[in-house]
Amino acid sequence: MKQALFTKLEQYYDEMVEIRRYLHQYPELSFKEEKTPQYIADFYRKLGIKVRTGVGENGVVARIKGNKPGKTIALRADFDALPIQEETNLPFQSKNPGVMHACGHDGHTATLLIVGKVLHELKEELSGEYVLIHQHAEELAPGGAIAMINDGCLEGVDAIFGTHLWAETAYGTVRYKTGPFMAAADRYEITIKGRGGHGAMPHKTKDAIVIGSQLVMNLQQIVSRQVNPTEPAVVSVGSFVAENAFNVIADTAKISGTVRTFSEQIRDQVEKEMERIVRGTCTAAGCEYEFEYARGYPAVVNHQDETEFLMKVAHEVPEVSVVEESNLEMSGEDFAHYLQHVKGTYFFTGAKPDAPITYSHHHPKFDINEKSMLVAAKILALSAIDYQHSETKCKQKATV
Amino acid sequence: MKQALFTKLEQYYDEMVEIRRYLHQYPELSFKEEKTPQYIADFYRKLGIKVRTGVGENGVVARIKGNKPGKTIALRADFDALPIQEETNLPFQSKNPGVMHACGHDGHTATLLIVGKVLHELKEELSGEYVLIHQHAEELAPGGAIAMINDGCLEGVDAIFGTHLWAETAYGTVRYKTGPFMAAADRYEITIKGRGGHGAMPHKTKDAIVIGSQLVMNLQQIVSRQVNPTEPAVVSVGSFVAENAFNVIADTAKISGTVRTFSEQIRDQVEKEMERIVRGTCTAAGCEYEFEYARGYPAVVNHQDETEFLMKVAHEVPEVSVVEESNLEMSGEDFAHYLQHVKGTYFFTGAKPDAPITYSHHHPKFDINEKSMLVAAKILALSAIDYQHSETKCKQKATV
Amino acid sequence: MKQALFTKLEQYYDEMVEIRRYLHQYPELSFKEEKTPQYIADFYRKLGIKVRTGVGENGVVARIKGNKPGKTIALRADFDALPIQEETNLPFQSKNPGVMHACGHDGHTATLLIVGKVLHELKEELSGEYVLIHQHAEELAPGGAIAMINDGCLEGVDAIFGTHLWAETAYGTVRYKTGPFMAAADRYEITIKGRGGHGAMPHKTKDAIVIGSQLVMNLQQIVSRQVNPTEPAVVSVGSFVAENAFNVIADTAKISGTVRTFSEQIRDQVEKEMERIVRGTCTAAGCEYEFEYARGYPAVVNHQDETEFLMKVAHEVPEVSVVEESNLEMSGEDFAHYLQHVKGTYFFTGAKPDAPITYSHHHPKFDINEKSMLVAAKILALSAIDYQHSETKCKQKATV
Amino acid sequence: MKQALFTKLEQYYDEMVEIRRYLHQYPELSFKEEKTPQYIADFYRKLGIKVRTGVGENGVVARIKGNKPGKTIALRADFDALPIQEETNLPFQSKNPGVMHACGHDGHTATLLIVGKVLHELKEELSGEYVLIHQHAEELAPGGAIAMINDGCLEGVDAIFGTHLWAETAYGTVRYKTGPFMAAADRYEITIKGRGGHGAMPHKTKDAIVIGSQLVMNLQQIVSRQVNPTEPAVVSVGSFVAENAFNVIADTAKISGTVRTFSEQIRDQVEKEMERIVRGTCTAAGCEYEFEYARGYPAVVNHQDETEFLMKVAHEVPEVSVVEESNLEMSGEDFAHYLQHVKGTYFFTGAKPDAPITYSHHHPKFDINEKSMLVAAKILALSAIDYQHSETKCKQKATV
Repeated sequence: MKQALFTKLEQYYDEMVEIRRYLHQYPELSFKEEKTPQYIADFYRKLGIKVRTGVGENGVVARIKGNKPGKTIALRADFDALPIQEETNLPFQSKNPGVMHACGHDGHTATLLIVGKVLHELKEELSGEYVLIHQHAEELAPGGAIAMINDGCLEGVDAIFGTHLWAETAYGTVRYKTGPFMAAADRYEITIKGRGGHGAMPHKTKDAIVIGSQLVMNLQQIVSRQVNPTEPAVVSVGSFVAENAFNVIADTAKISGTVRTFSEQIRDQVEKEMERIVRGTCTAAGCEYEFEYARGYPAVVNHQDETEFLMKVAHEVPEVSVVEESNLEMSGEDFAHYLQHVKGTYFFTGAKPDAPITYSHHHPKFDINEKSMLVAAKILALSAIDYQHSETKCKQKATV
Repeated sequence: MKQALFTKLEQYYDEMVEIRRYLHQYPELSFKEEKTPQYIADFYRKLGIKVRTGVGENGVVARIKGNKPGKTIALRADFDALPIQEETNLPFQSKNPGVMHACGHDGHTATLLIVGKVLHELKEELSGEYVLIHQHAEELAPGGAIAMINDGCLEGVDAIFGTHLWAETAYGTVRYKTGPFMAAADRYEITIKGRGGHGAMPHKTKDAIVIGSQLVMNLQQIVSRQVNPTEPAVVSVGSFVAENAFNVIADTAKISGTVRTFSEQIRDQVEKEMERIVRGTCTAAGCEYEFEYARGYPAVVNHQDETEFLMKVAHEVPEVSVVEESNLEMSGEDFAHYLQHVKGTYFFTGAKPDAPITYSHHHPKFDINEKSMLVAAKILALSAIDYQHSETKCKQKATV
Repeated sequence: MKQALFTKLEQYYDEMVEIRRYLHQYPELSFKEEKTPQYIADFYRKLGIKVRTGVGENGVVARIKGNKPGKTIALRADFDALPIQEETNLPFQSKNPGVMHACGHDGHTATLLIVGKVLHELKEELSGEYVLIHQHAEELAPGGAIAMINDGCLEGVDAIFGTHLWAETAYGTVRYKTGPFMAAADRYEITIKGRGGHGAMPHKTKDAIVIGSQLVMNLQQIVSRQVNPTEPAVVSVGSFVAENAFNVIADTAKISGTVRTFSEQIRDQVEKEMERIVRGTCTAAGCEYEFEYARGYPAVVNHQDETEFLMKVAHEVPEVSVVEESNLEMSGEDFAHYLQHVKGTYFFTGAKPDAPITYSHHHPKFDINEKSMLVAAKILALSAIDYQHSETKCKQKATV
Repeated sequence: MKQALFTKLEQYYDEMVEIRRYLHQYPELSFKEEKTPQYIADFYRKLGIKVRTGVGENGVVARIKGNKPGKTIALRADFDALPIQEETNLPFQSKNPGVMHACGHDGHTATLLIVGKVLHELKEELSGEYVLIHQHAEELAPGGAIAMINDGCLEGVDAIFGTHLWAETAYGTVRYKTGPFMAAADRYEITIKGRGGHGAMPHKTKDAIVIGSQLVMNLQQIVSRQVNPTEPAVVSVGSFVAENAFNVIADTAKISGTVRTFSEQIRDQVEKEMERIVRGTCTAAGCEYEFEYARGYPAVVNHQDETEFLMKVAHEVPEVSVVEESNLEMSGEDFAHYLQHVKGTYFFTGAKPDAPITYSHHHPKFDINEKSMLVAAKILALSAIDYQHSETKCKQKATV
């Protein structure tokens, strides 16, 4: 069965590349996807696969039933693009100005479509059901996952698998991580409301720049003093704006930034201490403030059994030479939401291009090694099929 | 003589008001004055007074010779306006959009023109020579004074007098100050050149916002610790700009501000220590920077004898009920330059309007009490004439 | 009369020196003076001068009545010493280990005793009454002045004069200042009550050193931002103690310092803003604190008429070559209290020794030029006598 | 064999307790151990075991040879005590005032002595050689391990095992960790050399307290900004001393603290960046400084194979109910040195007393659950014996 699966995927590799390149030319921004979900739905419909569109707004979900009863396994690929002007000069470069598939979601989509095609072709021999979740809006909080889940995309699902083609990891390498893997990514905005005035008369003002600067210094202590040093956390101020003539004193300073954490407890702690620091700093200065803390994606927390299962599956894929534990990744991913509802794991498939320079994700010259799509397809498809038989292992664990 | 002088000035008060209101409708920005100097020159020429135009670019200088030999006394009025959209709703409101005489220079000019007219009419009875300096560009560093001086406007001048119609001081009050009176006003610009990056990966960056904030905090110590506490000084950061998405780390922060001091020694000290603090802060952070310190007007330092002389003259003007010592003013004025070349004094003539609310200088609703022009005219004209006879006093002093 | 006065003072100069050298050998600490007040009282009693001892604890007040009615003039000298081990090697060096007349109060006392002796000898020719206030405890808040005033030392007094022999001012120079002259000197103590712990586990602590350091930085803004730049003010942290092993986190930090101001309004402002900054900083850190602000001597604010009067008197003393306005002095002096009750002035009498190095006040090698005592004696005595006749001037002023 | 081993250890449990209680009464400070090593040597000598004393100063090493050739396995126990006044009120409380076995090293020693006794009794049936390392001075850098290693204690050793009886972990639990386990613990001392002066005259000084406070704030950025957030690190300032009268400005501030890291790369980074921050902060302030960074113990980095081996062994001990992965521990341990020379692992043996309150290590009321000694003895002894047969596994690994 594995061999049949791998052979079919190899046969459709050229189509996978074709699809990826087509999508690459027509990238669409998060929450503004129209043609991409249409393309996906059409692809499945032509094959006679049952599709639901408009899931959670722009998502597409295809379901393939095997011949025998069994578990329901979901595979997820995201399909939105970024507000970046492409500079790759590839022949299939983006035709939408200022929009680019600079994170590999085109590859994710092509991979999953072909996996769906092959599972459909093999369905007579398969048990259980396969849910192909094509998700919109991964790049922009609150993300598409939460809406698709609310709209039922995980109905009946026993486990979910997903991968990111990762240009900074070598082709042939698979990186997994049990437990916390990718960080929760939050956003905060603070407005220091001082009292402006003449630069020569500070005593008649409340200097928003000095208050804001003091706040920035004080915020450093959240990570340096208040969070358990064995718990990774980041509090960054990304923007500080108090733009005025040189000879005035600022009335207002606008400060915004991001917080990254891996546990909900630390996340709560950081939010709470940030609020207290803002309040105390403004109390000291005798000024008012506004503070908004907006939670983004939670941390991606992989389930142990599914991660160990995935490791074994990865070893069975001939193109995979290295299966290694990943470090914690401070970046975020809304796959996190699925893992809060069903078991599963998210992993990185090495996609480093054969090129002298590797451009990182979100760079205008970003590209992937297309061969990595085949690797990802084999791991995802085999995971879906083999997970049907992983029951025993799970039960055993449960008795420990 | 004094009586003749005062009577003539009173007779021309209506014309003074008319001139001021005309000029108020046609304000011109610093260094872009065209019609105003033309108006001034025409005024003098029609009276047969010798005028030089284009002095130091846009300045106008009229000279009136008395019948007998004597000292040469300069009187100065500035005539530029500000980039402010007027909101007074006066019948003679500005007709130049976005430009406004919001500092009273229209009044200064009207005052000096009428003083010139009267001195011209009285010249047969006068000793010495009278230099009427109509200066452009007082509002914008490097100012017009320095160029006019370089172009000879102070040639042969023994002493100079000038006044500001001051809306925040009561009508009938004259404020003088011996020695330092108005502050030197400098500008600095600092660029923190960090290394930007992803908000989740501070260790790959040099966070320009944190470095800049630390710098703002450190700069506080110049005034709090390093300058002699009995020497007034101000170091203000007016602008702090590092505008980015919330989830990045800033590459660059642009900081600019103003420094106010009264002595050249403290001014040198502040500049030197500011440079050292910027350098040290960036050394600590391991980053590069750009630092520019641009000296604006020096401090207005009034000469003692001329200030005491002015106080006596002010007492002789019937409209003046209070002659009082002023506090130090942290704002700047390029009259400072004249006082570095010749003896003289600069003073405030109370010009608070008869209105429930007083708007401060540079406010879109700023206005003056026009009657103050007559007060200023009397003090300036009498100072010029009487200074001819103040010789003895000066000599006496010299022998102490 | 002036001549008689000066001649007598000159005749007693050797005795003045003798007294000063005797007192110098037996210095006594503030509030612990026993032998010095006894010595003073004995001196006056031997001459038949009426003395009151134990005034406000350790003070001594002698009163001498002239033959005719007139005003009552007080002259004041302080007589306490400092907890310093003398290192001068003078032949009349301190015999009390660890205690030293390192501020010239021995000279003040010798001067006033001889002034008293001479006034007593001249009393038949004098009008009015002379109050010789020998004050204990000038060096240590709350000082002796306030207690002596409460104990009646100023009863009936019309005006008071006092001087400091000032080693940093040239012999022959007298320095006066109208209005604010010497600063109000306050003390504050802050305890940061964090929560100590292991140096490796900051998240279980509230780090009192970091909180204290942040507070020190924040306090800089009182002077740099909140106080009117034309009002001299100082906020210094003198002591910061959180002494622990290197590998712990501090539980507590003790911070103390001094505040110097010249106006009661600024003094109130500083205290209020300091409290707010401490509160806000501790709010931000989520910790408790103790804050104590103890007012020391108020500012010495000299009365204008008496200061101008003193200037004239000083000019009449042949040894005085320069009479100049002093800068503001940030140091404090409890003469301030007398000036809150009666008119008067406090001035500096130049006492720079003829020596290659001048040691400043409170230095273990401090010394004065003894000739300055004669200068001070002449100014004080002549002030006291001449003030009887200064009535007209005061009245004139009053009518302005 | 395992059964024989466990039975013997159980038989000697009472003796183990007796030894521990005896040692508890006579604790000795690090590097000042005299009677403890004598006691240890006597114990072995009485049994006829070969002992070397004075190893690396105060260490003791016993060696027991089995009947057959095999690997050489070292077991290590530390025996120094702490400068703490005991407050347990135990019947066997410390008889040395101010010195206490407040970290369980008495238990470590008793455990290893009985392990040695049993191995000696079983030696006819054993392969290989057993090295019993009794180490002095674990509590005080530079520690005894490094000197003992230099003095040959690891000669011929193939692997080493050690444990800490851990009062904060439940009895019956064993905690292991592959790779970094306990932190490198360094010490730094910084002296800010400002220029002291009068509290009222900051401009004549360089305020060491303000400079030091600024430094403390700046040091926060090492952890918050410069170290990879996924790498645990701590930079704590433990002591800040600038003790002065309230009304002076500090000449000097003495700052010391600790740094905790897990990788040598991060350790190097922190030291380097700390130096740069000190230098930059003092450059900004224009002052001198002294900076000393003293490396303490490196991180304890357990070897993977030996740790996995230890996990298996632990499971074979009946008293062990939980074998779990430990978090990173920010505290340090000089067992780290042994692991830089030979393979091995260090683990925690749960030793929480049956008492309502658990006092942490180094607390004056600290105690251990004595039964944990038997658990530790069984794990250590079985590890030593079984490691003889773990060859295959190691070789297999080597071929991967």
